[in-house]
Amino acid sequence: MAGYSRSIRDLIELLTQLPGIGPRTAERLSLYLVHHQPYARRLAQAIEQVARRVRRCAICNNFTETEEICEICRDPNRDRTRICVVEQPRDLVVIESSGAYRGLYHVLGGRISPLEGVEPDHLSLDHLVKRIHDQQPEEIILATSPTTEGDTTASYIVELLRDLPVQITRLARGLVPGSGLEIATADMLVNAIRDRRPVERPGR
Amino acid sequence: MAGYSRSIRDLIELLTQLPGIGPRTAERLSLYLVHHQPYARRLAQAIEQVARRVRRCAICNNFTETEEICEICRDPNRDRTRICVVEQPRDLVVIESSGAYRGLYHVLGGRISPLEGVEPDHLSLDHLVKRIHDQQPEEIILATSPTTEGDTTASYIVELLRDLPVQITRLARGLVPGSGLEIATADMLVNAIRDRRPVERPGR
Repeated sequence: MAGYSRSIRDLIELLTQLPGIGPRTAERLSLYLVHHQPYARRLAQAIEQVARRVRRCAICNNFTETEEICEICRDPNRDRTRICVVEQPRDLVVIESSGAYRGLYHVLGGRISPLEGVEPDHLSLDHLVKRIHDQQPEEIILATSPTTEGDTTASYIVELLRDLPVQITRLARGLVPGSGLEIATADMLVNAIRDRRPVERPGR
Repeated sequence: MAGYSRSIRDLIELLTQLPGIGPRTAERLSLYLVHHQPYARRLAQAIEQVARRVRRCAICNNFTETEEICEICRDPNRDRTRICVVEQPRDLVVIESSGAYRGLYHVLGGRISPLEGVEPDHLSLDHLVKRIHDQQPEEIILATSPTTEGDTTASYIVELLRDLPVQITRLARGLVPGSGLEIATADMLVNAIRDRRPVERPGR
């Protein structure tokens, strides 16, 4: 990027380190920032804020800021008898936006993946066990991803909690709403049949 | 993005204002920054630097910083008899990286485009005329883009400089090196024939 002045070259180089941002996009974004300096200042400040303020909730390991305990753990209207175990904060956000769950969460910080060098002790599992001991929830809902690694992680947790007096459930798998049965894979059908549920019939 | 803490939500929202960055990418980038806080700090600083330091060269209108005059205008090894007129700093960078030119530049800051509301007086044209008066270069090379707007801009400049004692040239258009003649469009061939040049024959 000869021809650009120093700080533009530096910015282009830093931006190419972001995932999915190539040299061309980095250059385009840098020029945009040069041309929109008030916006650039606000963006720099927002990044600085995130870098300085965001940390992990001491209870559930979700992101938090300003307080040591996250908003969800502090919310008195949450159902404290249930803890939903997810891999990443992003999964928590997806479940939250569905509106289908009002319990608490526990963020593992990843999933067991020997290929990627992620071992059980990289996840907040000790923390989860301690939390179940302390808080005595009724149910642990395993919401790890429906992948080999997610399943491995779930099995590992089931084994880990074997002697604890808590019910363990997993999210159902099955058909995708809105798509016809003819496009369902065998795997989806196996899951859909296994997780089938009784139909409520009013008046009986 | 309910479920993320305040500063993460703010960052996602700001990032979606960047060109070509949708909500999904903004979320992904924000989480990357949360997970790489030392990098995020450096990036915030780099953006802040660009926002604070980069301005326009008082002579050629290219980006500059630390000095009022840009590196190229200050470089004593540059050929001061030629000024290459480009639309944007990016075009200057492309020409610089070709290594084919060692003269000075003049950055217009855009091209005439009535459809996009860009009129001649939005470009640094007065500045260009004054510069030619003051510096008396031998040649002005018009390197506006090979588009309708670029051509309009070039014609406008030719008219503007009509009475000035300076040679005006334009970049050649023609065949694309490395691609066969069979894929050339009629337009490319018209240009290639018009801009044809004598072959140097050693020994004659």
